Amino acid sequence: MATHSSNISVSYSNLRDFIHSAMLSQGLPDADALKVASLMAEADLQGSDGHGVIRLPQYIKRIRAGGINKNPNIRVVHEMPGSAVVDGDNAMGHLVVSHAVDLAIEKARHCGVAWVSTRMSNHAGPASLYSRKTLQHDMLGLYFAVGNANHLPPWGGSDMLLSTNPISAAIPGAEEPPVVLDMATTVAAYGKVKAKAKRGEQMPVGWMIDRQGQPLTDPNRANEGFLLPIGDYKGYGLALIVGMLAGTLGGAAMGRDVIDFNADHVSTTNTGQAILVINLAAFGDPAVFKQAVDKLVRDIRGSEKLPGVERIWLPGEQSHEKRQAYETQGIPIAPFLFDELNLLAAELKINPMVKNTSK
Amino acid sequence: MATHSSNISVSYSNLRDFIHSAMLSQGLPDADALKVASLMAEADLQGSDGHGVIRLPQYIKRIRAGGINKNPNIRVVHEMPGSAVVDGDNAMGHLVVSHAVDLAIEKARHCGVAWVSTRMSNHAGPASLYSRKTLQHDMLGLYFAVGNANHLPPWGGSDMLLSTNPISAAIPGAEEPPVVLDMATTVAAYGKVKAKAKRGEQMPVGWMIDRQGQPLTDPNRANEGFLLPIGDYKGYGLALIVGMLAGTLGGAAMGRDVIDFNADHVSTTNTGQAILVINLAAFGDPAVFKQAVDKLVRDIRGSEKLPGVERIWLPGEQSHEKRQAYETQGIPIAPFLFDELNLLAAELKINPMVKNTSK
Repeated sequence: MATHSSNISVSYSNLRDFIHSAMLSQGLPDADALKVASLMAEADLQGSDGHGVIRLPQYIKRIRAGGINKNPNIRVVHEMPGSAVVDGDNAMGHLVVSHAVDLAIEKARHCGVAWVSTRMSNHAGPASLYSRKTLQHDMLGLYFAVGNANHLPPWGGSDMLLSTNPISAAIPGAEEPPVVLDMATTVAAYGKVKAKAKRGEQMPVGWMIDRQGQPLTDPNRANEGFLLPIGDYKGYGLALIVGMLAGTLGGAAMGRDVIDFNADHVSTTNTGQAILVINLAAFGDPAVFKQAVDKLVRDIRGSEKLPGVERIWLPGEQSHEKRQAYETQGIPIAPFLFDELNLLAAELKINPMVKNTSK
Repeated sequence: MATHSSNISVSYSNLRDFIHSAMLSQGLPDADALKVASLMAEADLQGSDGHGVIRLPQYIKRIRAGGINKNPNIRVVHEMPGSAVVDGDNAMGHLVVSHAVDLAIEKARHCGVAWVSTRMSNHAGPASLYSRKTLQHDMLGLYFAVGNANHLPPWGGSDMLLSTNPISAAIPGAEEPPVVLDMATTVAAYGKVKAKAKRGEQMPVGWMIDRQGQPLTDPNRANEGFLLPIGDYKGYGLALIVGMLAGTLGGAAMGRDVIDFNADHVSTTNTGQAILVINLAAFGDPAVFKQAVDKLVRDIRGSEKLPGVERIWLPGEQSHEKRQAYETQGIPIAPFLFDELNLLAAELKINPMVKNTSK
């Protein structure tokens, strides 16, 4: 299997252009294709490699099957000064959530805070891609989403009524990088289970259980069990609340209504997301806030360490370092994925992906 | 030690009146004393017995030591249409948070959503006491707080820079009880550790570790270690984000600045809380939303169960059942606490607590 050192490297702009071409080949309008491509490539740029270009074949499959509206009328269906519901008209999720985030930022300028929910959206990539969009406006962002496949039962149950419903928060510092949390409410995201299977590795106890409640460690038997929530019943509660906020509130799918978009490429997913934007200027001087964040970040980083611990990380700090490195060195792409994408390119009759020539 | 069956039972109104008298004896204005008493008794009524009248001796100690402002000027110091910062002027926390919640509900009526932060507040009891206040207005509430003592280091560290920073969410159903999450971001709240010590029991592995990173199971050695966050690094991230939202954003204490209010009865705690209120009417027809919540609740409750599981609970459902039972049967008070409170009553020269005569 591929190891990190054998990865191929692709520049952000080449990756974006490749995805752009792929989306254009499917008939998306140019501006939409470019926006989706930019966000997908940015996911890889920040190290969210389970949510970037690796999803392209699946997205293309769904578009071809008619499961995505290529010419959507994304529109606001409910609105108050600080809130809105955006109906995505079954567009690519990246377009719907971008629309929601831009609207929430505008509303937060005037109200101090804003909450925008989406309905009729689709999978939109990593949560932090959107919470982070607030940072350049001296705002902070929280993002909630209903995951696109149910792998989590209620605590004590065995019906998979919940997804890994993620939470993200992005909080700006002054000189320090932003604090960016991006987490599934399960111990492991389902993508990590699939990655273990690909690598032929066992899962640690605590990731999954089987229908008897016994630990499940063979990732090839993943369909015989379910994910475990963080903190037992607490993570179940969090996944449920996140799902109600991101799904039920805006009229999107939740619970039994969630479509498994890995298995079904046609049915409308009616995916829901929600973005909460807080305008720092409404709470005092943003510069004072950001200095307080820096102080906190430095206190935490400087904490005494447990034996054997080399470094204390802030949420989002590893992703921040990847972003900085990949901007100059290019984005690592696993060889199996590189090959898969170039097979796709041949099929779509677009140019293959261009890898970096310098090592 | 006290067992449940030997508990003494006290009616809500008798418990409230007792606390009211205690607060009056310390010179709180009547309306303030009554509001604090009502909220503290309500905490016990909903089964949050670690955050109700059990805290009275500590609160009295702090008031007597001058650590609480008995005649505060609780006021808004920053405001936009959907947001505010409430400076509590070092009042009893219950008064400050009530003020913030009332303001947020009013703002959400006009903006669709509102976020109100507190600073210069104090310990205010269980988180769900406040998130729930939104329900009767066809709104939903989220509440975040900075805990009043640091027992949690950053992941990999051993400096206790974080508290158990709780999250609560209250979401109304139509016929079903509301879904109410109220959780610390640590595996166990510190109060549970203290309860284990009182009962002479060991803690399970996973609650605490010592400064070598080894499991700590003796609750009498709790000061030699720290609490563990839910989901390892994820809970650390959550505790940090909650603390920044509830503390840093509004200019309240966070990180190194948090006062251990168990050890220090004098220093101003500058406690911060935050309430987010969402007006259901801004997102569609509240009745439709509440019916969707009912359907989800019933699907979850009706899930197939793992072997040995008798019932699947929704977040807040056990508390809801306690509230219903205690309203008619009275609130159980452990004998040690009943005795402690009546010793306090003698000291304060107020009437002792009246227990239920029936049974």
